[in-house]
Amino acid sequence: MAEQKIHVVALGVEAFDRGLEETGTPFVHLDWRPPAGGDTELVETLFRIETRCRDEQGHSLVDAANAEAFRRIKAGQPVLRRVRPAHEVLPGMTRTTIFHAGPPIAWADMCGPMRGAYIGAIKYEGLAATDEEAAALMDSGAITYGPNHHQGCVGPMTGMVSYSMPLLEVENTAFGNKAYSTLNEGIGKVMRFGANGPEVIDRLHWLEKSLAPVLDAALQACGGVNLKNVMAQSLSMGDEMHQRNIAASLNFYKAIAVELTRAAVESGEDAARIVDFMVRKNEQFFLNLAMAACKSVLDAARDIPYSTVITAMSRNGVDFGINVSGLGGEWFTAPCLKPRALYFPGFSEEDANPDMGDSAIVECYGIGGFAMGAAPAVTRFVGGDGLASALRCTRDMGRITVGTNPDLPMPNMDFAGIPSGIDIRKVVATGILPVINTGVAHREPGVGQVGAGIVTPPMDIMVAALRAFERKYC
Amino acid sequence: MAEQKIHVVALGVEAFDRGLEETGTPFVHLDWRPPAGGDTELVETLFRIETRCRDEQGHSLVDAANAEAFRRIKAGQPVLRRVRPAHEVLPGMTRTTIFHAGPPIAWADMCGPMRGAYIGAIKYEGLAATDEEAAALMDSGAITYGPNHHQGCVGPMTGMVSYSMPLLEVENTAFGNKAYSTLNEGIGKVMRFGANGPEVIDRLHWLEKSLAPVLDAALQACGGVNLKNVMAQSLSMGDEMHQRNIAASLNFYKAIAVELTRAAVESGEDAARIVDFMVRKNEQFFLNLAMAACKSVLDAARDIPYSTVITAMSRNGVDFGINVSGLGGEWFTAPCLKPRALYFPGFSEEDANPDMGDSAIVECYGIGGFAMGAAPAVTRFVGGDGLASALRCTRDMGRITVGTNPDLPMPNMDFAGIPSGIDIRKVVATGILPVINTGVAHREPGVGQVGAGIVTPPMDIMVAALRAFERKYC
Repeated sequence: MAEQKIHVVALGVEAFDRGLEETGTPFVHLDWRPPAGGDTELVETLFRIETRCRDEQGHSLVDAANAEAFRRIKAGQPVLRRVRPAHEVLPGMTRTTIFHAGPPIAWADMCGPMRGAYIGAIKYEGLAATDEEAAALMDSGAITYGPNHHQGCVGPMTGMVSYSMPLLEVENTAFGNKAYSTLNEGIGKVMRFGANGPEVIDRLHWLEKSLAPVLDAALQACGGVNLKNVMAQSLSMGDEMHQRNIAASLNFYKAIAVELTRAAVESGEDAARIVDFMVRKNEQFFLNLAMAACKSVLDAARDIPYSTVITAMSRNGVDFGINVSGLGGEWFTAPCLKPRALYFPGFSEEDANPDMGDSAIVECYGIGGFAMGAAPAVTRFVGGDGLASALRCTRDMGRITVGTNPDLPMPNMDFAGIPSGIDIRKVVATGILPVINTGVAHREPGVGQVGAGIVTPPMDIMVAALRAFERKYC
Repeated sequence: MAEQKIHVVALGVEAFDRGLEETGTPFVHLDWRPPAGGDTELVETLFRIETRCRDEQGHSLVDAANAEAFRRIKAGQPVLRRVRPAHEVLPGMTRTTIFHAGPPIAWADMCGPMRGAYIGAIKYEGLAATDEEAAALMDSGAITYGPNHHQGCVGPMTGMVSYSMPLLEVENTAFGNKAYSTLNEGIGKVMRFGANGPEVIDRLHWLEKSLAPVLDAALQACGGVNLKNVMAQSLSMGDEMHQRNIAASLNFYKAIAVELTRAAVESGEDAARIVDFMVRKNEQFFLNLAMAACKSVLDAARDIPYSTVITAMSRNGVDFGINVSGLGGEWFTAPCLKPRALYFPGFSEEDANPDMGDSAIVECYGIGGFAMGAAPAVTRFVGGDGLASALRCTRDMGRITVGTNPDLPMPNMDFAGIPSGIDIRKVVATGILPVINTGVAHREPGVGQVGAGIVTPPMDIMVAALRAFERKYC
């Protein structure tokens, strides 16, 4: 009988490892807890991926691919370059094209806030004068729609991107790719939460005609803003940059303040109104910048064969979808969960729309819920007990990620870097789901935000992606 | 024999208390470690203060007085009202009056940086054209000088306050008293570190003629800025507001941004230059605001009979001085220590001037070194090990203070308030000295800042104050 190479995977109890060590058998220890329901088929899937995806020397092809994904995430340098109308930068966009957050969904299946947002976006573009006309246009099929992510674009909550909307252009200078996001609309009645009345439309026109040109001129004057630097500063200032962007919004303003003031004064725009909108009234201004930055970085980690790293998590208010690097653009979806949230006075979970928006791209990068340790004040929104629960959350996220990014250190974690690169193997093996910090929209169109809290993807999509990975690679 | 009331003070070992509890004897436990050198005379001083300063019911008059001091500190509401020239707001100021940081000191005894600053201030006021002329003026006795603190005023490092300098006016609206500070000059060559060349003087003229009037106009337009709110926000953003004012400077700007931009544009001043100075180039802009705010709050806690709470800590580069509430305006002084610091490249402790400035007023309020737990990034400057040492520092300061101020919660400390009201009894009893975060000046005039670190008052002044207290009240 020919001698065969034996691969051993030790699951769970570490005592078993010592026996293997004594016999000199090479082995892999997998820190394992029974995954959702202790499903033995899943254990077999993990086992097959662990043992079969190896090169001739026995090295894990998955680990190598994930190391490459992580290297690219770590190396990413997102630089905000321009603010341009969507139709100038998204190829093939027409006056009747409107993109949305999350994985693909049909008009008939959309949730209340997203329907409200579509009606608003159609009115904003002047394609219809009333809500009824706008809805009829959607019913008629005259509007082209689809996910932002397919356009290299991201938007929070409903995530509307229409022809005339100004987009933030972020270039990942380490790899040359670009990503886009809309400008944050501020708080109160806003289209991202499905509001679509005159004040929403008027504000969007002001963003388009006043703020965007001034911001673009300021960016040309200063040569762009490295958003990774802004994120690094803000992690030492209590932000995790999903739920809380107070420091990041100020730090971004600081980076561009001189050029912005000069551009506003020179263009004859009301400089005080711009500063009011960007600095005083909008503590989430940076959220959209963080999202475009993370999208530009994660896109560079797409399509690496054998990689089990998540390149996008996104929700359309009905379904939660993920992309996995080694599985290309395929969406793995299941119904969104409702966030565990603190509700504004007068609202409760009954009012909440299920989870929504492209914003979970920031958790793929390692901020948001993954950087909770840097932002203990956020735990007040998510039922935590202060610093200890914040640190624990980030440590847990460290168990499902490839590594930590030293360019983004957290003083609260003794300057450890943010945990980056979610590995679906680790999610399924440990049963620890990614924690996403999020806002909560009312389920009816037009009402707006009703709370904030945390949410996870459904475990089913992690399992589905892992099984698809097994089918493709084992 | 008539029955006598017995007062027991249990020092140190807590096991002794249990015996007292069992016998039902009323007692006071003093958490005690042998003070500087285990001096038995000091123990007796503490004992006499503890036992003799009691009312007829046996309640501690000192504890009651300190509770009142703490109540006033907690209730303080420092609101920035105006920016006016020193001679308009400090009574009796003449063109030849220049105040300095720290306790009183004669010109002949001043350290290098303070001599440099005096020469600079004289030139800034146009009283002399050259350094030699300025020094001769000082030698001649033509310049009136004395401590800022005697004028309700504070200034960082050398702390120069001359006739034309614009002062920030902070009103403690809870008690109606006012306190003042200069505007922060920014970094590089600055008078507060003893520099006095043309760029220093030119910048001071710009502050006087351009920034101050615009800032004053903005304050009139917005009705003032509550600095306690700014401090509370900034404690959740990584600042302790002595060493680090990054968030606080931005938060202050945020509070006044709209009115400031409008005032700058309307006055014809260069709005972009103002924003450059306040937002981009000066991460310590808020320090002087914090100092004036803390001065206004601590002044309301002065002159409470029997109180052992420190109302000022201040240094002139030669002597460290403190005031104690129950001991009025008397200064207890001893030679300053050199900070334990991280030095800028090319400098070492040999270059350092001993500790200097009125800025330690912020530690009297409970920020700076006392709020280190909120600012773990600062530990990099002070040889700490990150979060743990930051939390430990604040907990230690909790052992020498009267209470914690819930209006100024620290998310990093599970929202516990800052430790406020330094009790000299506790300092002497525990041997724990107040920790002050500070900048370090070069010992020669004109060189400027060479490092940053932490420093404590000399224990001697705590002991001297405690003995004076004993003489006065026991």
